Amino acid sequence: MNAILLIDCPDRKGLVAAIADFLYRHGANILHADQHQDNEQKFFFMRVEWDLADFDLDEPSFEREFRPIASEFGMHWRVEWGPKRPAVAMFVSRYQHCLVDLLHRYQIGELPCTIAMIVSNHTDAGPLAGFYKIPFHHIPVSAANKAEAEARELELLEAGGVALIVLARYMQVLSPDFVARYPRQIINVHHSFLPAFSGARPYHAAFERGVKLIGATSHYVTNVLDEGPIIEQEVIRVSHRDRADDLVQKGRDVERIALSRGVQWHLEHRILCYGNKTVVFD
Amino acid sequence: MNAILLIDCPDRKGLVAAIADFLYRHGANILHADQHQDNEQKFFFMRVEWDLADFDLDEPSFEREFRPIASEFGMHWRVEWGPKRPAVAMFVSRYQHCLVDLLHRYQIGELPCTIAMIVSNHTDAGPLAGFYKIPFHHIPVSAANKAEAEARELELLEAGGVALIVLARYMQVLSPDFVARYPRQIINVHHSFLPAFSGARPYHAAFERGVKLIGATSHYVTNVLDEGPIIEQEVIRVSHRDRADDLVQKGRDVERIALSRGVQWHLEHRILCYGNKTVVFD
Amino acid sequence: MNAILLIDCPDRKGLVAAIADFLYRHGANILHADQHQDNEQKFFFMRVEWDLADFDLDEPSFEREFRPIASEFGMHWRVEWGPKRPAVAMFVSRYQHCLVDLLHRYQIGELPCTIAMIVSNHTDAGPLAGFYKIPFHHIPVSAANKAEAEARELELLEAGGVALIVLARYMQVLSPDFVARYPRQIINVHHSFLPAFSGARPYHAAFERGVKLIGATSHYVTNVLDEGPIIEQEVIRVSHRDRADDLVQKGRDVERIALSRGVQWHLEHRILCYGNKTVVFD
Amino acid sequence: MNAILLIDCPDRKGLVAAIADFLYRHGANILHADQHQDNEQKFFFMRVEWDLADFDLDEPSFEREFRPIASEFGMHWRVEWGPKRPAVAMFVSRYQHCLVDLLHRYQIGELPCTIAMIVSNHTDAGPLAGFYKIPFHHIPVSAANKAEAEARELELLEAGGVALIVLARYMQVLSPDFVARYPRQIINVHHSFLPAFSGARPYHAAFERGVKLIGATSHYVTNVLDEGPIIEQEVIRVSHRDRADDLVQKGRDVERIALSRGVQWHLEHRILCYGNKTVVFD
Repeated sequence: MNAILLIDCPDRKGLVAAIADFLYRHGANILHADQHQDNEQKFFFMRVEWDLADFDLDEPSFEREFRPIASEFGMHWRVEWGPKRPAVAMFVSRYQHCLVDLLHRYQIGELPCTIAMIVSNHTDAGPLAGFYKIPFHHIPVSAANKAEAEARELELLEAGGVALIVLARYMQVLSPDFVARYPRQIINVHHSFLPAFSGARPYHAAFERGVKLIGATSHYVTNVLDEGPIIEQEVIRVSHRDRADDLVQKGRDVERIALSRGVQWHLEHRILCYGNKTVVFD
Repeated sequence: MNAILLIDCPDRKGLVAAIADFLYRHGANILHADQHQDNEQKFFFMRVEWDLADFDLDEPSFEREFRPIASEFGMHWRVEWGPKRPAVAMFVSRYQHCLVDLLHRYQIGELPCTIAMIVSNHTDAGPLAGFYKIPFHHIPVSAANKAEAEARELELLEAGGVALIVLARYMQVLSPDFVARYPRQIINVHHSFLPAFSGARPYHAAFERGVKLIGATSHYVTNVLDEGPIIEQEVIRVSHRDRADDLVQKGRDVERIALSRGVQWHLEHRILCYGNKTVVFD
Repeated sequence: MNAILLIDCPDRKGLVAAIADFLYRHGANILHADQHQDNEQKFFFMRVEWDLADFDLDEPSFEREFRPIASEFGMHWRVEWGPKRPAVAMFVSRYQHCLVDLLHRYQIGELPCTIAMIVSNHTDAGPLAGFYKIPFHHIPVSAANKAEAEARELELLEAGGVALIVLARYMQVLSPDFVARYPRQIINVHHSFLPAFSGARPYHAAFERGVKLIGATSHYVTNVLDEGPIIEQEVIRVSHRDRADDLVQKGRDVERIALSRGVQWHLEHRILCYGNKTVVFD
Repeated sequence: MNAILLIDCPDRKGLVAAIADFLYRHGANILHADQHQDNEQKFFFMRVEWDLADFDLDEPSFEREFRPIASEFGMHWRVEWGPKRPAVAMFVSRYQHCLVDLLHRYQIGELPCTIAMIVSNHTDAGPLAGFYKIPFHHIPVSAANKAEAEARELELLEAGGVALIVLARYMQVLSPDFVARYPRQIINVHHSFLPAFSGARPYHAAFERGVKLIGATSHYVTNVLDEGPIIEQEVIRVSHRDRADDLVQKGRDVERIALSRGVQWHLEHRILCYGNKTVVFD
C-alpha cells in the first residue's frame, strides 16, 4: 500500500531536506519522487510516492505530524493514502467514442477509480452503461430546465461522493455555480488544439482555415469556456484530401488519447495546477 | 528533362480523359500524376510530370496546342518546362537558424532553385552569405524609411528576376503594395501553430497559456497578417519544465522543418492555392 | 452509388488515357482518382472511384467491356461495385482493446463492412460480442488440436462468406494452409515497430534494449511470421520512467490506431500490394 | 554560477534525505532536482543543480565533505562545477548536414561546450570549419593505415583535452582500443530507428522492407556496433511515394534532431547510463 504526497509552495532553501528528512525518520520507502521549480516565479512543486509497509504513521497521525513542516514553509499540500478509488462520474451527450474508450480502460485496470455513474442528456449511452453495469442517469437539458437539471445532477454527484467529473464529449456548458462546486475536479476534452478553434464546431473551423494538423485538448473546466488549465494535447496530420467529415473522424483518435491521459494522470495524482497552467509529473 | 503541368478548374466529366489523351498523343512518358477533386465545391486540381524525351512539342507549341483544351474546360493552368532554376531571394533579420538550414539544403541539392540574393535589415547574416557566395544586401528598415527600403528591395528583386521570396524569420511586415507584386510568391514561417498565437511573441503567449505542444507554420503571405494559405505545420511536445526560452529553442527545430518543406514543395511545383487554402501534392 | 476500379500493371504510355477515355465514354462522374508510378520498377498503380448515377454500364457489362483494355496493357485489376459490405471475421485472444475499438468504429460507421463473426481461442470476448450482437465462436487451440481447430474456423469463414480476417491481438500462429486460403485477406497487428522486435514479447524486448519510442504495425499475414507487407505503423514516445508494463499500456494506444487504419483502408479498397510492400492511396 | 551533482547507486532509505540535508547545510539554492528509481533493480539516480552564490564549499572541499556520504551509500557520483565548457571533437565524413546543424547551434549558444576540432577522413568539411574558425584535421583512413590514423586522432584528442567525441555522420568504425579510451564519451547518430536496420545502408533496407516510418538514433558508442545505450530517437512518416533517395533526405531531418538532442543533453549532464540503457533527465 502506497501514499502520495503533493505539495506546492513558494520555493525556499531547505524544503526538500525537510520533507526528505521527515519521510526518512518515519520509515518511508520512497518509490517515486518528482519535483519542479519555477525559478522565475520562485515556486516549488513536489510529488512523492512511498510504500507504507515500514511507515510508522497512519493517515491521521501523518496529517498531525506533517502540519508543522507544512506551516513553516507555507505549503499547499494533500496526501493520498492507500488504494482509495475515487468515485468518478462520466458525462456524455451523443458521441460515445471517448466513453467507450474510457470504460474499456477502466475495465482492464488503467484507471484507478470507481466509475460511479454515467450522466447524459440523451439516452444513447444507456445500453453501454448497462453492459458495464454502471448506473445510468438520463437528464435532458434545455434552456428552460437547465437549473433544475443541474440541481438533479449535483444531487446525484453528492449522493455518489463523486470526486471527479469527466466530460466525455458532453455538449452542454455547465453553469458557474456548478463549476464552482467542483474546482479542478472537472476534466473536459475540447476537440481542437486550444487555443486554436475554441468554441463550437472546431473541426469545421479547422477545415475552413486549411490547417495541416488538427488536435484535441483535455483541460480542467473553469468558468471561462475552453480557457481552463490544459492537461494534455495531441495532434494528427490532415491534408487537402480530408473533408470536414474526415477531420471529425481523425479527431476522434486524438480526443480519446488526450482525454484518457488527462483522466489517468488526474487519478494517479500527477497533476498540480498553478495559475492557469498544469504541472504534470510523469 | 521533364515538364510539369499544373491545372485547377471547375470539375467536369471528361477532364482527365482530355488531358491524358492530349499528353499521350504527343508522346508524353508520364512520371507522376496527382489529382484532387473537391466534391463539395466541384473543383478539380491536377499536377502531371512527364519526361520530355519522346514528347513532340516544345514549350511554345505546347502552349499553343494545349490552349483550346484549357479554354474548353475553363482551366487555370501553367506549365513548367525543363530544368529551370527559379531565382529566389531570402529575407532574414537577426535569427539565422532557418537561413543556415536552407542554405545547406540548397548546397546539397534539395532545393531546385538559384538563391540569387539575401536581403536583411541587419548585418548579421552577411558573413554566412559570403561563405555561400550569395550577394548580400543590407537594407535597414524603420518607420521613417520603410517605403524607400521596400522600393530598394523591389528594384533588387526585379533586377534579379526573383520568382520566390522566402521570409526566413524576417521580422518586418511587408506593405500591401509589396505583397501585391508577388502574389503566392512569398513564403513566411510563423513561429506558432496557426491560427493559435498569431501576431508577435507567439512562444511567450504559448508559455503563458500553458500549452503542451508548440508549432510552426509556413504559409503564403497575403495582406492579412498571419492569415495566408497554410502550406505546412509541424509541432513539438513541451512540458512544465520548459521555460519560455526553451520554447524558443524547441521552436527553432519545427520552424526549420515547416519552412524548408514549404520552400521545397513550392519549388517542385507541388502547391496549388484555392480560396485561402492549399493543395499540396506529395 | 459508387464503383472503385483498382489496377496494377507494367507502366506504359497511354495507360491513363485509355482508362480515362473508357470511363468518360461510359459517363463516369469521377470522384477520386489516385495513381502511383514506380519509375524504377516501371510499374503502375491506380485507384479510381466514380459515381454510378450516369454510368451506362452495370457490373457484368463493365467486366466485359473493360476486359480488352485490361488485356492490352497486361493489367491486374478488379472492380468494386456499389455499396457491398464485405463480411469480416475478427479473431481475438484475451486482450480486447483492439476489438473494443474496432467494434465501436464499426457501430458508428467508420468501417464499411459487416462483422460476421468473432472467433476466439478464449471465452473472454463473448460478452462483448453479445453486446454488439455478433456471433461468437469459441474455438480453443492447442498443439494437439490445431489442425482440427483451423478446419472448424475455415468452415465458419466459408459459411459466412468472409472476405477479410482481422487478427485483433490473436496470439495463435496460423498454419501455411490457412494463410494460403486468404492471401492478402488477413490483417494482423504486431505490437512493435517492425522489423524491430519481431517475434514474441516485443514490449519486453523494447524495454530491455532501452529504446525511446515504441510502435505497432499492421500488416498482411504471409507465411513468414511478422514479415508480410506493412500497411501502417504508429509510434509513441517512452522514457526511462516507463517500466515494461507501461510500455504494454502505451503500446495499446498505437496498436488500436495502426490496426484500425489498416482495416479501414483495406475495406475502402485503398491498398495495393506489390512485392512485399503496399501502396496505400489516401 | 551553478554546480551539478550526478549520482547513481543502489536504492536505500535515507538517500534523498542525506543528500538534501548536505546541500541545505552548505547553503545550496537548488534550481533543478530530478531523481529516478528503478524499483525492479532497486537502483537510484539523481541529478541536482544548484546556484553556488550562497554555497559555502568550493569544488575541492565539496569533494572532501561529500565523500563520506557517498561512501556510506555506495554512490557512483560526480560533480560538475561552474561554467566549464568541455572540449568537444566533431568527427565527420562527407555528409555535412549534422555538422552544419551542430555548428550553428554551437554558435548561438545551444551547446555549452568548446568545439575544439573537427576531424575528417575527407576534406569536404574544411571550408565549413574555416568559416566557424575551428581547427580542421584531415586524417584519411584506410584498411592499411587505420591504426596509424587512430593514433594520430588520439594524439589530437589528448592534446586538445577532448571530453566528448561526436560522430556527426562519421562513416568509419572506431577500433575497440579507441572506444575504450572514451567510455560513454562518444556519441554517434545511426540513420535508422535502432534496433531496426542496424549496419550499413539502413535507408535502403527500410525502403526494401516497405516501412511507413523511418527514424534516427543517437547513442553512446560501445564495441558492439549499433548496440550502445540509446540516448534519443526520432521518426518521420514515409509512403509508397518515397523512393530510397527521398528516405535519405527525410532521414537527414531526423538525424539532425536525434543527434543534436543527444549532444546537448550530454553537455548539460542530463544523461546517466546503467546497463545498456540511459536515464535522460529533462
